[in-house]
Amino acid sequence: MADDPFEIRPGEQAIDLPAKADAEVYFVGRIRTPWTRREDCPKNARESEAVCSIEVDPRWASALKDVETCSHLVVLYWMDKARRDLALQVPRHYGEQHGTFALRSPARPNPIAMSVVRLLKVEGTQLLVQGLDCLDNTPLIDIKPYFASTDAVPDAVTGWHAAPKDK
Amino acid sequence: MADDPFEIRPGEQAIDLPAKADAEVYFVGRIRTPWTRREDCPKNARESEAVCSIEVDPRWASALKDVETCSHLVVLYWMDKARRDLALQVPRHYGEQHGTFALRSPARPNPIAMSVVRLLKVEGTQLLVQGLDCLDNTPLIDIKPYFASTDAVPDAVTGWHAAPKDK
Repeated sequence: MADDPFEIRPGEQAIDLPAKADAEVYFVGRIRTPWTRREDCPKNARESEAVCSIEVDPRWASALKDVETCSHLVVLYWMDKARRDLALQVPRHYGEQHGTFALRSPARPNPIAMSVVRLLKVEGTQLLVQGLDCLDNTPLIDIKPYFASTDAVPDAVTGWHAAPKDK
Repeated sequence: MADDPFEIRPGEQAIDLPAKADAEVYFVGRIRTPWTRREDCPKNARESEAVCSIEVDPRWASALKDVETCSHLVVLYWMDKARRDLALQVPRHYGEQHGTFALRSPARPNPIAMSVVRLLKVEGTQLLVQGLDCLDNTPLIDIKPYFASTDAVPDAVTGWHAAPKDK
């Protein structure tokens, strides 16, 4: 099962999820990307210059008013292929154990990804962007304007990631 | 009804929400802040240096491993007091109509806020942070490490917001 992306690796911990959920999410569109298999996705968005397309449900067309004035957007999407019960994980490309809340892994209690994207063009309900790394057809749950004043922290450090390693 | 925070103002547009939701969210903790009324909350997180507390459900305690090595975190939370059907909004402090996806307003199809916070201290399952502006007892849905390499865009512009106005 070494190739099963849903296996639990040594050092990982799954916990019992709550018996019931607390709130509900509407999908408001889909994200179209060049990647149809998990192993083809870039490890992170800076690895790829690919132009992806955010297709907003026509129901929400008017909610896009003025989005075209934004150079960058915060995109939230639902990583519906990931398991939700992992508290400790050993990501394949790091090989070290970390807590789920110290990782950007898709496996998390609420599989919501946050990506900062560069907006290239708005065509009706389609947004062309750079900076995504998700599977094709991933459900969209939100788009927000990116505000450098509150969202940009260039000197932020993630210590476990920045620390030198023997490799 | 001028003081009803849930009224629809001139220029706002409510749409029909889908008949059913697409996915479910678990609350994984609560956010404790000094603000118990919506009108007391800072307009944005840079307005306040208040230290707030993120209380993670003990179920997820081990998911916090290595979070203490992060200088900043991305926090997602559920703004459960907001209406979800507004596509066009006229925020009181701007007085102009914008699309929901061009705003950070709590009123949105999925009332998920994203805040970048400075992490001051981790004490068990309690995180002391600066940079939140939400109501006391707001449900927490995710914590992620902030990576400057992908999340910090200091020169990003939100055009409608940056544009000079007659006021």
